[in-house]
Amino acid sequence: MQDGHVTPSALDALAALLRDDMTGVNRLIVERMQSPVPMIPEIAGHIVAAGGKRLRPLLTLAAARMCGYGGDHHIGLAACVEFIHTATLLHDDVVDESALRRGRASANALFGNQASVLVGDFLFSRSFQLMVDAGSLEVLAILANAAATIAEGEVLQLTTANDPATTEAAYYDVIRGKTAALFAAAARVGAVIAGRPKADADALDAYGMNLGLAFQIVDDVLDYDADQAALGKTVGDDFREGKATLPVLLAYARGGEADRAFWRRCIEDEQQTDADLAHAIDLLRSSGALADSAKAARDRADDAKAALKSLDADPVYLETLAGIADFCVERAF
Amino acid sequence: MQDGHVTPSALDALAALLRDDMTGVNRLIVERMQSPVPMIPEIAGHIVAAGGKRLRPLLTLAAARMCGYGGDHHIGLAACVEFIHTATLLHDDVVDESALRRGRASANALFGNQASVLVGDFLFSRSFQLMVDAGSLEVLAILANAAATIAEGEVLQLTTANDPATTEAAYYDVIRGKTAALFAAAARVGAVIAGRPKADADALDAYGMNLGLAFQIVDDVLDYDADQAALGKTVGDDFREGKATLPVLLAYARGGEADRAFWRRCIEDEQQTDADLAHAIDLLRSSGALADSAKAARDRADDAKAALKSLDADPVYLETLAGIADFCVERAF
Repeated sequence: MQDGHVTPSALDALAALLRDDMTGVNRLIVERMQSPVPMIPEIAGHIVAAGGKRLRPLLTLAAARMCGYGGDHHIGLAACVEFIHTATLLHDDVVDESALRRGRASANALFGNQASVLVGDFLFSRSFQLMVDAGSLEVLAILANAAATIAEGEVLQLTTANDPATTEAAYYDVIRGKTAALFAAAARVGAVIAGRPKADADALDAYGMNLGLAFQIVDDVLDYDADQAALGKTVGDDFREGKATLPVLLAYARGGEADRAFWRRCIEDEQQTDADLAHAIDLLRSSGALADSAKAARDRADDAKAALKSLDADPVYLETLAGIADFCVERAF
Repeated sequence: MQDGHVTPSALDALAALLRDDMTGVNRLIVERMQSPVPMIPEIAGHIVAAGGKRLRPLLTLAAARMCGYGGDHHIGLAACVEFIHTATLLHDDVVDESALRRGRASANALFGNQASVLVGDFLFSRSFQLMVDAGSLEVLAILANAAATIAEGEVLQLTTANDPATTEAAYYDVIRGKTAALFAAAARVGAVIAGRPKADADALDAYGMNLGLAFQIVDDVLDYDADQAALGKTVGDDFREGKATLPVLLAYARGGEADRAFWRRCIEDEQQTDADLAHAIDLLRSSGALADSAKAARDRADDAKAALKSLDADPVYLETLAGIADFCVERAF
């Protein structure tokens, strides 16, 4: 992040380890987004084709394989995890009124809010059908709980939006729900279908949870600190939407009266001029808020790596997952 | 419907038969809509407190009881069915931009679209948690399939909206998905948890499906033919939103060039003046479209009653469910 473009070697390495499984996941995703209602594959295809890193399904596949799973339910569960993620993206774009998603026009901008809400509901339902196919009530409980936690995090985010005085604790509650809960569940279910003891499932859960926190903090930093083309979304989106992300909270807490008035006008009142984003970035840098946010992400990535220590699992995967944690805090795209 | 206010005696009778179970369902609904995020019970409570007939959970309870079920999973499944319904109401209001729901300001009008989308997602997730609690993969499959079918029906409705030349077949595809699939699943799961053979589950499914079709057709008729206060929603909502409901399709198909131009202007272009709703109602009456739509609902209600004939079940419930089918086509609210 601080170093500009970093080669995502750990992500490439993980994708290479799981190439055949991932081919199966991608095939299943395309197969299960079909419907006799043409608008559904059209919209779902738009967002699925835009790609993304497929990090969440890779976590499920890796967790299952490193735990010695020999069946094929991990393919369906990985597709399920990606469907949950895709459904939340569609609903987030409605909520955020975003114009860009993964560098392309967002589904709601192209197809309207109504279609985005309903196709999101369809993909969410499909994800539950895929879970049922895996035939494990324990896995169903984990993913249903994650889905509820995601929604809670998203609603909490609405209530903290536009409040630069949001506490760090509330910020972490939001991102634990909206982002990290799915990372945690994605990793946990791999251990569960492999029949591993609870301690191993807990370790992978803690890895996913901390990885998700690091991932989201970095995302929030990049919104103020990245090259727009490389980011694939509009820089300053969070600022324009008045989101109370970690960099803003820290800068607000450290600011004098004039700085606080600036943040309240921009974040609370959403009264912004063209020059305000540049001034915000200056404040985020000079106060150390951006650097300390990046440091917080680094700490969560280290926690993720530490959670792997107790796992008796394939060392190639252990090393690659540790690399993924580093990748998440170093990514510049 | 044609006779104005009809006492909902069958619904009262069903509610009386299931009073204790329904108390448990209502308690569980309130318990499971809680969350540490205060906005969730606030919004969910708004829509749940508005009441509604609780017809869908009553179907689940009745089906389980009439099939001799002696456990208590039917309570959780009935709450689950109501949560799915409530979630779709919240998302429908976003899609329709409705100002009223069950006679009160709709959640999106009060809390905004963002909160309605996300709290809907939460309730939908909660419904899956409730299903998991019931511990039956077969039940999970039925309800997950219904959820996907509902979303397909809603998306299909978007693509037929504003087209008065929509075919009757497409109209039935829409309402089979958006309304009847949940009625069918609600009834089916009662037989399944009672361990009844497939033929009985199929019979209750057919009952619920036809009841749901009748219910929706009546709803579409009432939008043009009811007392606004009794209906608890705005008369003419479907007209103003350009919905291609059965009465409109029939009137359009039967109309001359001037009538078709009128429907295209009002439904396709949504160009309406204050006098247009009254003229639309005149056309719907003079063409026989309203009466024939009511007749179509009557036929589906008769099919629902016929589906009960093959069931070897408690005759008190059989008679009451047959009465519910009659009630659905006679209701004036």
